[in-house]
Amino acid sequence: MPARKTRERILETSLALFNERGEPNVSTNHIAEELEISPGNLYYHFRSKEDIVEQLFAAHEMRLDEALTMPGERLPDLEDLWFQLHSVFECLWASRFLYRDLVDILSRHRRIRVRFGRLLRRARESVQRLLSGLALRGMVAASPREMEAATENVLLVTVFWLGYDAARRGQTEGASADLAAGVYQVMMLIAPLLAQPARNHLLALAAAYRR
Amino acid sequence: MPARKTRERILETSLALFNERGEPNVSTNHIAEELEISPGNLYYHFRSKEDIVEQLFAAHEMRLDEALTMPGERLPDLEDLWFQLHSVFECLWASRFLYRDLVDILSRHRRIRVRFGRLLRRARESVQRLLSGLALRGMVAASPREMEAATENVLLVTVFWLGYDAARRGQTEGASADLAAGVYQVMMLIAPLLAQPARNHLLALAAAYRR
Repeated sequence: MPARKTRERILETSLALFNERGEPNVSTNHIAEELEISPGNLYYHFRSKEDIVEQLFAAHEMRLDEALTMPGERLPDLEDLWFQLHSVFECLWASRFLYRDLVDILSRHRRIRVRFGRLLRRARESVQRLLSGLALRGMVAASPREMEAATENVLLVTVFWLGYDAARRGQTEGASADLAAGVYQVMMLIAPLLAQPARNHLLALAAAYRR
Repeated sequence: MPARKTRERILETSLALFNERGEPNVSTNHIAEELEISPGNLYYHFRSKEDIVEQLFAAHEMRLDEALTMPGERLPDLEDLWFQLHSVFECLWASRFLYRDLVDILSRHRRIRVRFGRLLRRARESVQRLLSGLALRGMVAASPREMEAATENVLLVTVFWLGYDAARRGQTEGASADLAAGVYQVMMLIAPLLAQPARNHLLALAAAYRR
């Protein structure tokens, strides 16, 4: 099997095992066993589990940065909000192991901690741009302090939705998640900040999304 | 040393070590070592680490239930909201190990998963009672769906504030946390749901709290 192919298979299998069992519960030996390769072969491609986690994080980061990209030429509107949230939640689900044990992973992996901090800052700027766009369209009826606090709450609810959903359902196997409910909760964070008729428009979009 | 005293010391030391290093990173051997007792002596008092975690959870649950108690004879008002949030965040900080690795702990400890589910339901009822009280006072200018979604977001932001604060600051040692910022974020979730003058009253309370 060509080396490039093995490297890719290691990443794919690691992602699947991390997502299924939680990153703290998966060792490089588990990964090699699942792939039916020797631990030595695995270490030929990756120095350590941290190395694998960092490669997976880099791929997640690229995908998420793409999802955070805003329309360049015009002001964002409520449909952009909906679409962006949907894409972001799909990204988080694909790399859910990162969010299941976020604080633990960040405490053990210094480089991922630094990168996650930067990713969070880019996400914050993206939310700010979106809310500013709605304000410039005259859709907002909230104070700057309310907008600022809402930006932070949007990030928090998005980052921890999967964990909250698992905890409230007492189902922690990572087998399924109510992504639509997460998108809905974030839309409902923003709705009360809007003036009519934008507020009712967003409430209608959110209700249709939840069905 | 009397047995009761040793039992209490084991619980106190376990709580301190869990909070400092994260529950997944502390074994019963670490706890016995820190207390300078034999593992056998520890197992005389507690069958397993799960047993210790469950006792600590029971104590946390009692404290939190007390913090969630509402004034019985009158409708809750904005000062009650402020006071209750403050008490709840103090509780969460005292048992922060539970929230740092919530999904992992719940996935490993079935009994705690069941008890946490019940605790979350009681907390939801408490938030609902509080928001209903504000509505009965004529302070609310939001739809039932907005109120319902806000209830869920209040729980999510409260449960995961400590994790979010650690992640955004890239500081994951559990040594300190911005509890005031957490209380502020929850107050700012509720402010946009209120009619004037209650909305400005809550914004002023929140701003004073943040200073």
